[in-house]
Amino acid sequence: MHKNQGPVYYPQYLKLDQFLDCQIPMSRVHATQADPEVHEEMLFIVVHQAYELWFKQMIHDLDSVLDIFRQPEISDQDLGTIVQRLDRILKIQNLIGGHLDILETMTPMDFLEFRNLLIPASGFQSTQFREIEIKLGLKTNDRVSVDREFFLGRLSEKDRDRLLKIEEGTSLIKLVEKWLERTPFTQMGTFNFWDEYKIKVNEMLAEDEKTIKSNLAHLDEAGQKAQLENLRITRETFDSLFNKDVHESLIQGGQRKLSQKALLNGLFILLYRHEPLLSWPFKMISLMMDLDESMTTWRQRHALMAQRMLGSKIGTGGSSGHQYLKRAAENNRVFLDFFNLSTYLLPTSRLPNLPAAVLEKLRFKS
Amino acid sequence: MHKNQGPVYYPQYLKLDQFLDCQIPMSRVHATQADPEVHEEMLFIVVHQAYELWFKQMIHDLDSVLDIFRQPEISDQDLGTIVQRLDRILKIQNLIGGHLDILETMTPMDFLEFRNLLIPASGFQSTQFREIEIKLGLKTNDRVSVDREFFLGRLSEKDRDRLLKIEEGTSLIKLVEKWLERTPFTQMGTFNFWDEYKIKVNEMLAEDEKTIKSNLAHLDEAGQKAQLENLRITRETFDSLFNKDVHESLIQGGQRKLSQKALLNGLFILLYRHEPLLSWPFKMISLMMDLDESMTTWRQRHALMAQRMLGSKIGTGGSSGHQYLKRAAENNRVFLDFFNLSTYLLPTSRLPNLPAAVLEKLRFKS
Amino acid sequence: MHKNQGPVYYPQYLKLDQFLDCQIPMSRVHATQADPEVHEEMLFIVVHQAYELWFKQMIHDLDSVLDIFRQPEISDQDLGTIVQRLDRILKIQNLIGGHLDILETMTPMDFLEFRNLLIPASGFQSTQFREIEIKLGLKTNDRVSVDREFFLGRLSEKDRDRLLKIEEGTSLIKLVEKWLERTPFTQMGTFNFWDEYKIKVNEMLAEDEKTIKSNLAHLDEAGQKAQLENLRITRETFDSLFNKDVHESLIQGGQRKLSQKALLNGLFILLYRHEPLLSWPFKMISLMMDLDESMTTWRQRHALMAQRMLGSKIGTGGSSGHQYLKRAAENNRVFLDFFNLSTYLLPTSRLPNLPAAVLEKLRFKS
Amino acid sequence: MHKNQGPVYYPQYLKLDQFLDCQIPMSRVHATQADPEVHEEMLFIVVHQAYELWFKQMIHDLDSVLDIFRQPEISDQDLGTIVQRLDRILKIQNLIGGHLDILETMTPMDFLEFRNLLIPASGFQSTQFREIEIKLGLKTNDRVSVDREFFLGRLSEKDRDRLLKIEEGTSLIKLVEKWLERTPFTQMGTFNFWDEYKIKVNEMLAEDEKTIKSNLAHLDEAGQKAQLENLRITRETFDSLFNKDVHESLIQGGQRKLSQKALLNGLFILLYRHEPLLSWPFKMISLMMDLDESMTTWRQRHALMAQRMLGSKIGTGGSSGHQYLKRAAENNRVFLDFFNLSTYLLPTSRLPNLPAAVLEKLRFKS
Repeated sequence: MHKNQGPVYYPQYLKLDQFLDCQIPMSRVHATQADPEVHEEMLFIVVHQAYELWFKQMIHDLDSVLDIFRQPEISDQDLGTIVQRLDRILKIQNLIGGHLDILETMTPMDFLEFRNLLIPASGFQSTQFREIEIKLGLKTNDRVSVDREFFLGRLSEKDRDRLLKIEEGTSLIKLVEKWLERTPFTQMGTFNFWDEYKIKVNEMLAEDEKTIKSNLAHLDEAGQKAQLENLRITRETFDSLFNKDVHESLIQGGQRKLSQKALLNGLFILLYRHEPLLSWPFKMISLMMDLDESMTTWRQRHALMAQRMLGSKIGTGGSSGHQYLKRAAENNRVFLDFFNLSTYLLPTSRLPNLPAAVLEKLRFKS
Repeated sequence: MHKNQGPVYYPQYLKLDQFLDCQIPMSRVHATQADPEVHEEMLFIVVHQAYELWFKQMIHDLDSVLDIFRQPEISDQDLGTIVQRLDRILKIQNLIGGHLDILETMTPMDFLEFRNLLIPASGFQSTQFREIEIKLGLKTNDRVSVDREFFLGRLSEKDRDRLLKIEEGTSLIKLVEKWLERTPFTQMGTFNFWDEYKIKVNEMLAEDEKTIKSNLAHLDEAGQKAQLENLRITRETFDSLFNKDVHESLIQGGQRKLSQKALLNGLFILLYRHEPLLSWPFKMISLMMDLDESMTTWRQRHALMAQRMLGSKIGTGGSSGHQYLKRAAENNRVFLDFFNLSTYLLPTSRLPNLPAAVLEKLRFKS
Repeated sequence: MHKNQGPVYYPQYLKLDQFLDCQIPMSRVHATQADPEVHEEMLFIVVHQAYELWFKQMIHDLDSVLDIFRQPEISDQDLGTIVQRLDRILKIQNLIGGHLDILETMTPMDFLEFRNLLIPASGFQSTQFREIEIKLGLKTNDRVSVDREFFLGRLSEKDRDRLLKIEEGTSLIKLVEKWLERTPFTQMGTFNFWDEYKIKVNEMLAEDEKTIKSNLAHLDEAGQKAQLENLRITRETFDSLFNKDVHESLIQGGQRKLSQKALLNGLFILLYRHEPLLSWPFKMISLMMDLDESMTTWRQRHALMAQRMLGSKIGTGGSSGHQYLKRAAENNRVFLDFFNLSTYLLPTSRLPNLPAAVLEKLRFKS
Repeated sequence: MHKNQGPVYYPQYLKLDQFLDCQIPMSRVHATQADPEVHEEMLFIVVHQAYELWFKQMIHDLDSVLDIFRQPEISDQDLGTIVQRLDRILKIQNLIGGHLDILETMTPMDFLEFRNLLIPASGFQSTQFREIEIKLGLKTNDRVSVDREFFLGRLSEKDRDRLLKIEEGTSLIKLVEKWLERTPFTQMGTFNFWDEYKIKVNEMLAEDEKTIKSNLAHLDEAGQKAQLENLRITRETFDSLFNKDVHESLIQGGQRKLSQKALLNGLFILLYRHEPLLSWPFKMISLMMDLDESMTTWRQRHALMAQRMLGSKIGTGGSSGHQYLKRAAENNRVFLDFFNLSTYLLPTSRLPNLPAAVLEKLRFKS
């Protein structure tokens, strides 16, 4: 606990003199009789600075999470800290989403008044946002090549070097992968969890088949065909989980990121989330999905707002704003693997019973 | 003002006996020793009933808006009423979006416990939701054919007939189109607004060209090419606004819904939104865009939630839930034309001055 | 896992025929040429029915939480379930708060059109809401006597009897009290946690005193006096925690609800929230505080809205709406004790170290 | 429309080097081996800087609104601009409310780790927030005297002088009062609106009396007395509206701020809000009520959060945080008069008909 070091004054503590001196509209700098300062430009600056301020906090918390994950061993208290900070990052991301409502109070026509002054500046040049994406696990090379060149080409040399250096570090998804691979519970002694799991899946699929077949009579031919095709696909989907070749080709195609081992251990956590020891790990995975969802929703709403501000006009950075943002929302998903794991969940009542030796590790001493 | 008609008791006024008797979980009806009632099914019912309750209110307000629009003349007070009710519909749609947060408190595994009991029921069978879509302006035939058959084939005959009958009526977008076509201000006596507009656009594009050319030196060859290409596209885009053939082919391709006349008059309202007489019309168009945005965001979030609940499993209705919902979010946009109009906006300082005769109509008598 | 029992149709599953037949405006029933149906009454009904629908879900979850708590022993998985359901109740309460935004789309003048028809119906007659309050721990006798009579006098005999019967049952706060009293960690063998705690508190207060005294020079006489008075109050506050007489008199005065033992054990959970075994208990206490906060905020906003709709008019139920609601927001706080516990928290670095025997119980076997 | 002035780089435009250099935790400056930097202090700084950033924007918009109001004449387009900017201020205030959710992710115990370092800094020293309050219309002398001294005594001389100077300027409420007093519609030629209004009120009260008396039989003696007392109070309340002495004493007692003339003209706007010319004025008054409501809700939630963080501990600034904030939420209401006007509204069907000469002014030329 820190002791008092002499009186502190709020405006000085927050460095408000310096802080509140950073909002300088270009339309003020270049104001003329004919083209005076545009009232609305202040809002544009304030919104984007608010983003950057929160990005700094997100990086502060994200860095601390990465530091904890880099330790050789991660205690349960550590997991508690990770969960608390990911939860904060998520809440910040949600708050940031709400900033669009305020930006939309500016009319497109007011924006056009000062938009020329900003060319070719662009949100792509927010290196803090890129830093967050990279540290979560979105490498520049994950993107289609044109984007990578396009994007790096727009940064100052210093900023480009800084980001490329960050890319060399480890990302959250990679650290989580390593951590998941170390989870021990699915193989203990003679117990192999996945054998039990396959038995339960087969039981369930057999019942599904029965249900579907007994309902076929209510459907026309096309409907029947569709139902049977669904069934076949479902079987294939479950089989693919344990198939190394399928897994490898999904990795190659960029549709999957995690190793097979990490993925299976992640599935185990999702299935046994109610066990005390797995409560933090499950919460952690949930938060990563929430974050993915929140960033995707934000990008989607951003795309809609761009369409509303500019129609199909070209953005200040030269990109066709709306279309670019829409594509980015589709593709930039870091934790998609966890969403896809839901395909493989079982109903609670179908969960294989775990042997006493495993349960003892998962629960508190009573 | 109604007078009191004798004492009223809150639970009776709300018909709570009947109302609170409608939540009957299937897993309660079919409960056995082995498969008892599933606690979480109540939530599933309550969330969907809450949707239906709000849909009823949305239809109540939407119908009244359509009724007003069907009148031969629409007074300014009428427009005020329309705006108030569209605003409420929007607020309800936003509230409905928040229901997903509550549905997500159910684990996918709990959902799997009772999911079989619901087959093949599906949200597609919410005829109130379809009614809202149709009355806004989304005809079943706007959808790709397979959807139409798929969708109609799942309804009871009575429900199907009811919806097909509603389709025969007029939708909000059609009524708004007629109303926009009647807006008189762009052609008065010798004044043709669009001649003035084109002059301003050409001035602006000439300046853009100058700016781009003077900045070309900072770019590499690809960048230069991109900028010049952007410029060409922008010119083409503005030209297309007045080109009947382009307009017609966009209509045919399903990318545009409004007639050219309605579209141009809509653009006039967006440009002169600050004029008193246009304040309600502009607010009305804004609300229709807000509603489009809110419904799209809801569909997108719904798609993400489905992915999280079911991965790539097939929905109870036999559809591949996540993919279907994602496609629906992309395509089912009723008021897209208004978003695209933003392409054609001018900066406030470039707006053509309107002649006194027009202004007199747009403003209050002072 | 339930098996399919034959095809299900969405509108039948949700009993929509019956459900959507419950919205009957009084102004429709009593419509005359002079006083036709009031369009806005539908909204009034729908909002209140939406409340009741969600109340039903809240009671469904709350009852299951009470059932779990009534068991002789509560496992860690049980705590997980409790936390999940309290979290849902909280999310529903937050959603309900948002319904006010929609109610506010009705103008006060439209409300006045049909308000007379509702006399003397009132939200006080929502027995489901009272049920929730009672089951959380707010007895009718906690309220000032006039309220109790006022409130009970307005119910039908059947409803009154039902609520009085519910009052005889056990509430969440009482069950939580019993559960807290059983928490074993603060006294084990020769270890008495509270001795250690007092040592740390005294150290901290001594430092505070030093800080304050060294800063006194910067203050005028009144400021100095205030600071020293603050110090005295703080000491007294900490002392009161262990003082049975003080505790008893707070209970008598209605300012405290929990027994001293439960309170101290609650404080221990707040202090060691980062220990794995305490993570569910802490989350549970947090959720109860969140719920208290959300209900209070809702009551406060409700009071502001009533003021805005009716000014200082008398409510349909005969109460002076705004003032009543404001007072209710102040006083009806069930879990206030947990908020007040924050007074007694220590900085993380000042927490007493726990002996190995205690830690072993709080952590997983490694 | 501004022309491009040469290429702009996003990080430079936003002055990010300077801006992101302002977050310096005290616990970093004073870090020692024993007391290292506290991770959570960054959040504390970022949240408060985010507040200040948005306060700057609010002042930017508020100043422009005051400037418009200071003009001798305010056109309808001006009113449109005022409404747009008040709407933005409201949206920002709502967003700011959401920042508390993020601050609450810090545990009270983490806060205690660095809290001593901040003494006696306090949010009271946010001169931008005080500037907003003063410019809205909350003078320091409106507060009870001890507060004024307490508050001013904690500011640097420079800040104190700046605020006292701002107090000498005109506030929004004063400018709105002047503007309301100029509204012409209630007295035109021989037409005196208030005579008509009183007739309608008396009709309505006579009916209320009849209703109440016919329902008395259903009540016990106390209930009957209460109803009759309510009736008497309602009559008195309506009478007071036109009573100069009552008005004067309310002003003296600080319960009312607006002149009687302004108040009555405000009531006229509320009553005839559906008339086109009054649509901006009504929206403006609504936004001022919304803002009042949002600031009050924020203060109330802030008070609850303080209670949760600190219990009844004394704040860093020496105030008993929770109690102070609760009192401030109760008392610092700028636009309360508009809320109270709701008392005097009539049902739509009871509105006096306005003479043609007045209607002609309120509507567009058809």
